[in-house]
Amino acid sequence: MITDSTAIDRLIDSLPAQIITTDPDVVASYAADQSQFTDRALPVAVAMPRTTEEVAACVRVAHAHGVAIVPRGAGSGLSGGANTPADAIVLSLHRMTAIRELDTDNRIVVVEPGVITAELRNYVSKAGLYYPPDPGSVDFCTIGGNVATNAGGMCCVKYGVTGDFILALECVLADGRIVRTGRRTVKGNAGYDLTSLLVGSEGTLAIITEITLRLLPAPRQPQTLVASFSTLDGAGKAVRAISGAGITPSMLEILDRTTVKAVDDMTKMGIGDDTAALLLIQHDGVDAPNVLADIEQHCTSHGAGEIVVSSDPTEAEMLLEARRQALPALERLGDWLLDDVCVPCSRITDLIAAIEQIAQQTGLTIGVFGHAGDGNLHPTVIYDKTDAASRDAALEAFNEITQKALELGGTITGEHGVGRLKAGWLRKELDPVNIEVHQAVKHAFDPTAVLNPGAVLHIHG
Amino acid sequence: MITDSTAIDRLIDSLPAQIITTDPDVVASYAADQSQFTDRALPVAVAMPRTTEEVAACVRVAHAHGVAIVPRGAGSGLSGGANTPADAIVLSLHRMTAIRELDTDNRIVVVEPGVITAELRNYVSKAGLYYPPDPGSVDFCTIGGNVATNAGGMCCVKYGVTGDFILALECVLADGRIVRTGRRTVKGNAGYDLTSLLVGSEGTLAIITEITLRLLPAPRQPQTLVASFSTLDGAGKAVRAISGAGITPSMLEILDRTTVKAVDDMTKMGIGDDTAALLLIQHDGVDAPNVLADIEQHCTSHGAGEIVVSSDPTEAEMLLEARRQALPALERLGDWLLDDVCVPCSRITDLIAAIEQIAQQTGLTIGVFGHAGDGNLHPTVIYDKTDAASRDAALEAFNEITQKALELGGTITGEHGVGRLKAGWLRKELDPVNIEVHQAVKHAFDPTAVLNPGAVLHIHG
Repeated sequence: MITDSTAIDRLIDSLPAQIITTDPDVVASYAADQSQFTDRALPVAVAMPRTTEEVAACVRVAHAHGVAIVPRGAGSGLSGGANTPADAIVLSLHRMTAIRELDTDNRIVVVEPGVITAELRNYVSKAGLYYPPDPGSVDFCTIGGNVATNAGGMCCVKYGVTGDFILALECVLADGRIVRTGRRTVKGNAGYDLTSLLVGSEGTLAIITEITLRLLPAPRQPQTLVASFSTLDGAGKAVRAISGAGITPSMLEILDRTTVKAVDDMTKMGIGDDTAALLLIQHDGVDAPNVLADIEQHCTSHGAGEIVVSSDPTEAEMLLEARRQALPALERLGDWLLDDVCVPCSRITDLIAAIEQIAQQTGLTIGVFGHAGDGNLHPTVIYDKTDAASRDAALEAFNEITQKALELGGTITGEHGVGRLKAGWLRKELDPVNIEVHQAVKHAFDPTAVLNPGAVLHIHG
Repeated sequence: MITDSTAIDRLIDSLPAQIITTDPDVVASYAADQSQFTDRALPVAVAMPRTTEEVAACVRVAHAHGVAIVPRGAGSGLSGGANTPADAIVLSLHRMTAIRELDTDNRIVVVEPGVITAELRNYVSKAGLYYPPDPGSVDFCTIGGNVATNAGGMCCVKYGVTGDFILALECVLADGRIVRTGRRTVKGNAGYDLTSLLVGSEGTLAIITEITLRLLPAPRQPQTLVASFSTLDGAGKAVRAISGAGITPSMLEILDRTTVKAVDDMTKMGIGDDTAALLLIQHDGVDAPNVLADIEQHCTSHGAGEIVVSSDPTEAEMLLEARRQALPALERLGDWLLDDVCVPCSRITDLIAAIEQIAQQTGLTIGVFGHAGDGNLHPTVIYDKTDAASRDAALEAFNEITQKALELGGTITGEHGVGRLKAGWLRKELDPVNIEVHQAVKHAFDPTAVLNPGAVLHIHG
């Protein structure tokens, strides 16, 4: 990377003043996403293009001057994918917020990357359509960031992840060329699946400027069941029984003992004392009442204590409150470091049990919550940022959890992405030849490593 | 490509005799797949490796000697993806037929590429599990070929295509290195989605030696409805009404007037005279009887004549006979050239109407059948191979149909792949920058263009 200030000055001078700023306060606020324990430095400028052509202009001049570019959605990521190295410019897509087209006949919506995911969901729901992905940050994250990280959420057990809804992309390549990938039909095999390759590539291969998404018909109002278990094993067996019976809930979440206690301490819901695990389950099929009865039976057979079922939307919202308050409740206990591992569904209780041991060994509080239906859990390590020993212990616990997920046949990231946080871990999960192929693909798209060079493969200029 | 016979002799000598043959009869039978109007030449040898290591050995020596390799499943493709250029060796994976693992807990099966797709479906169904993809060639195609072409079938409207079920791959790269991509969890964002990139790449990026597939719980016995329409427009409106009502059938097929007549002439089913279009619909949801009643209502509202509904499996098989006999019935009329276009679902009747015009203009019989539910149609041009003028007319009709699909916002291939048949068309569908990215990706995987160089991008040595 060329990092001399002349190059950067020339870069800034060659772009319209309306779309680039070096204001120190603005620049400082764009240095990092919401991740912990990740490298970041002050960027030299923030570009805020309004159109695809302006994105291309920014990328062209950065490429010409050898300046790294970090594309950014809302900065809500948890893996450092939007952290900046020194001498880089941030390219924020927050001004590109148009919904360009809604084709209700073919259930397709075409949007710019800066649209907030919740706003997209609301927009299409007014036309009786449904965009399922619902990451925890749905109210403030952007669809562009969701595509770049292949974001998930609670819907995935039934509906899949962001990538499952992407039909086509418009992107700006590392040298400023504009490319369109994909198609508007639900099937299509014309050439390589570059769309899927770009989804989840965290801004290291191209910058997404337009997204064509497929939508579903509006779902039915779900029915909700919450079951508490006095043993972790019982909850795990209930999850396996539900899945083994061929039931596909539209939500299947778990909270472990530590998380339940933290929520109970905060909310005084009265769910804490004997609860080793809480399952929160929804079903939005036409036969939900019968399926809920079956689910209830599976929970009871595996030792569930209290079970509450509701078909009333308001009551359902209250039942889900424990899940929604999981992270806020854990946050009250100290600083937090959130993991995002995913294991084969049959191993989730093995993972939670191992995490209980890790918590004992390190003396830290670790709450676990997440998507039991697809094996994607978010162990959350509580520590004290101001205490070096606590920081070390937190990082040790985090690493042991991630290692355990790999040992159980899992992956280092279910939905948050690799970013900078797990670039080292990527080399433990993937075999060396796979890393070589990654590097070859990166080089094919971005030979001078201008695009987000620190993320995923951790390329240094 | 180096093509001197010394290199090829050295290549053959360096492999075990049990896995390579130059027997002229064998070699001749491996020159092409089932496609028409596609280039092919005699390969110099056929390699028949039994293990991943033997595949790697074949690829290493071919790479070292600069000899092109064409990987091949059952040779049932319709786009020339397995046709061979001159001086190439065919690498047939038909000996790699092991089912390596079935994990019923996590609904995963791990197979070698030579397993026949129907055998895979039967194998997992005995464990109460379901592998949906059902290409027309399901009884003789291989899962490896299905992955290489991202094959579809009648299930796609509800269940998706082959790629939607692939979790992980083991592949041999162009220089003989072995790589593993993907994971065993249902979610995962560790690095680039190389698995999706390799699915549908038609043997041009790597050779697939092991496939990890996700499975579903066994589906319910479907209910079946067949409706005949005296106007094409009515059938199209019924399809849109069904989709617009948020109904997702497990099958939604259409036969046009020409195909219905051909089937009726052959089978004497008595469905032909007034029928402009036939819809064949299945639903395998728990509420199938109610949904079928809704579907019947939509068909009636849009002018359906006779409607037959059945929940009896044997009767359902009889009802589907017209669909199954579509290609055999058209085959009786002459030689055939099958297209595989896909348009947005709202445009299928526009496409069928345009094809009727093209048939009139060219004086050829063109039957249309296919997957109305996802817009993927198979217009089938009937011609006389022995007549040069008829051949020219067939190719002209084929090209006009493909062009029309693009004009309607569609794609040149819904499920058969580009192969050699549509390598020229790929450059009409994709923008020039997209083609440049394709070439860069191909170069990243296979810099000397050893792997199936004539397919997809039509690279000449």
